[in-house]
Amino acid sequence: MARKIHLAQRMDDIQPFHVMDILARARQLEAEGRSIVHLEIGEPDFATAETIIQAGQLALQNRHTHYTPTLGLPALRQAIADDYQRRFSIQVPASRIVITPGASGALHLALAVLVNPGEEVLMADPGYPCNRHFVRLLEGQSRNIAVTEATDYQLTAALLDHNWSDNSVAAMLASPSNPTGTLVTGPQMQAMIEVVDARGGRLLVDEIYQGLSYGVDEFSCLQLTDQAFVINSFSKYYGMTGWRLGWLVVPEAYVDAVDRLAQNIFLAAPTLSQHAALAAFSDDTRLILDQRRDEFRRRRDYLLPELKAMGFEIPVTPQGAFYIYANSSRFSQDSHVFVNQLLEQAGVAVTPGIDFGAFNAQQYVRFAYTRPIEVLEEGVKRIREFIKNC
Amino acid sequence: MARKIHLAQRMDDIQPFHVMDILARARQLEAEGRSIVHLEIGEPDFATAETIIQAGQLALQNRHTHYTPTLGLPALRQAIADDYQRRFSIQVPASRIVITPGASGALHLALAVLVNPGEEVLMADPGYPCNRHFVRLLEGQSRNIAVTEATDYQLTAALLDHNWSDNSVAAMLASPSNPTGTLVTGPQMQAMIEVVDARGGRLLVDEIYQGLSYGVDEFSCLQLTDQAFVINSFSKYYGMTGWRLGWLVVPEAYVDAVDRLAQNIFLAAPTLSQHAALAAFSDDTRLILDQRRDEFRRRRDYLLPELKAMGFEIPVTPQGAFYIYANSSRFSQDSHVFVNQLLEQAGVAVTPGIDFGAFNAQQYVRFAYTRPIEVLEEGVKRIREFIKNC
Repeated sequence: MARKIHLAQRMDDIQPFHVMDILARARQLEAEGRSIVHLEIGEPDFATAETIIQAGQLALQNRHTHYTPTLGLPALRQAIADDYQRRFSIQVPASRIVITPGASGALHLALAVLVNPGEEVLMADPGYPCNRHFVRLLEGQSRNIAVTEATDYQLTAALLDHNWSDNSVAAMLASPSNPTGTLVTGPQMQAMIEVVDARGGRLLVDEIYQGLSYGVDEFSCLQLTDQAFVINSFSKYYGMTGWRLGWLVVPEAYVDAVDRLAQNIFLAAPTLSQHAALAAFSDDTRLILDQRRDEFRRRRDYLLPELKAMGFEIPVTPQGAFYIYANSSRFSQDSHVFVNQLLEQAGVAVTPGIDFGAFNAQQYVRFAYTRPIEVLEEGVKRIREFIKNC
Repeated sequence: MARKIHLAQRMDDIQPFHVMDILARARQLEAEGRSIVHLEIGEPDFATAETIIQAGQLALQNRHTHYTPTLGLPALRQAIADDYQRRFSIQVPASRIVITPGASGALHLALAVLVNPGEEVLMADPGYPCNRHFVRLLEGQSRNIAVTEATDYQLTAALLDHNWSDNSVAAMLASPSNPTGTLVTGPQMQAMIEVVDARGGRLLVDEIYQGLSYGVDEFSCLQLTDQAFVINSFSKYYGMTGWRLGWLVVPEAYVDAVDRLAQNIFLAAPTLSQHAALAAFSDDTRLILDQRRDEFRRRRDYLLPELKAMGFEIPVTPQGAFYIYANSSRFSQDSHVFVNQLLEQAGVAVTPGIDFGAFNAQQYVRFAYTRPIEVLEEGVKRIREFIKNC
């Protein structure tokens, strides 16, 4: 018997990731015997480092299967604080570090304690789509600001100043950024902090890809301010995607609210993941992770010139994450169509620009270099053949 | 430099669990050398069953560290479907079963696809506090309906009919219930389904404590309808709290919306936990879990008459979960004060009624029998001494 479906209105605005359809179709083609080159997946191909696996094994042996405190294992919060000291020479008290179920949990907490219905959060278009969807979930409004190669696809102090309204309460940055792989510079970060401070707002900084940058001196927003919310993750540099573990650095005045909310919306992050992550900061692990970072760099250094040589426009060199955001308009006026044809005809899966926003999205595709160079080479060969017919 | 704090208004309404303060104070007393009997903790004392631990070890050996599909491992969704067939002789297609990060994730998904700002969800007071907090997070309104021993502390068709308004879109039930340990009967469930159906609403049924019931024939709401959202968990009967794994059974028409939302708010549940949970349905595991269930029953059968003999009023025999919701008004007009004194003076930690709602909350405390009988005996001894002075 058919029933009337009452669906909350927010669901009209929460889009699926189109890449999921691409991935599903790719799997279907593979099941039919086709070979597919996967350049769409935003997940390192490496399994979690052996040292972290071993720590997980030990945690299981020791039967660490109960809940941890809501804000996380004290030893893990301290290990993260120590790592900020080691890498950036900054003191971030462990009391401000909250362990979360993935960076998703961190993003959710930060936005939920900040954003009232109707209030605005400024963010870059293109950007990570969950950002605007979390704001929508909370009945807030994302103000998606078009960014171009002129600003390395990043927001700037001028853009924030120009777009800030009476309803604005926060601005989000991502450095390195998904999908563009670009970073915010230190002076720009400082200038944005000043604009948002002057407006009485808060900065949310996504540092999820921290550690995966190539040929630049990394910095953390935390070197410049203790008033921002900083989102981080064990998924990317630390290679722990399936463990669902991230963290949020919280301004002191918000720790109590974040604690109350976390108790209610997820109780605690997975216990085994937290114990395993304690091994993520050892010298042995860092050696493995830095080798992997160097491998990502080699992949970028291979793929970037190949794509340019074929005619993709990539005016800004991506310096972090594992993405290349490329203008495909020489081959197609609709990158979503292009992506579908590339998959069907050439067996190469990439992500359409539409997954990252609306601004010029039909002109762009995202390549993820999360596969070994020999796979990238096969992908390049196939794309080169394919675009002959575009 | 002090800054103005912009805190979202919802945080005025999202209370901490007061039991967290009790627990923190108990830990402090223990650090000072005091012995504390913990009757406040809503978590089984048993570590996860050996069979499940071994499956986790194997998953680590096999390097299952990447993301799973958003809706969960297909094999786990099928295993849950098979278990519904085995236990309740019902066919629940795996396509309607969504694996979530804890039951918290399931609750969040169900409410977020249903509740618009200002819309109402009916629920029992006393009840699990996160229910109303999730509704508040989504800018909806919980209508907290006072329930008494007259209805086994459960909602009824008459209560739903009486309290339903033009703004109501859903009603939540929990069977067995936290904090009362009571169950909904089959006829009452059927009657409530009919009322909610007639009103064009949806039923959300919390079956988190399913499997932990004593001396009653259990049933699932799914035997009576395929139009309800059913929330379940690997935390309680399956003893996997720290693994953060639950599931949501979704009416067919909502699967797409739930999928889209889950992609955005948590990507996927922890991978290792999902692989380990595959072992939760084996005969070997069930043997262990049923022994533990029998042990919970022995504890209830010990603690319940002892508490009654001391003068706590417990008019309804709790038949499930691991809680006894007891009227303490013979000893104190404010159970929160009583709970604090019991901890400080007698070294026994319990949960004040205020954690579960407002209705007569100051007359009630919750005892959790999540400790071995010899610990319960020590607790009983201490409480008996303490109440001599009340």
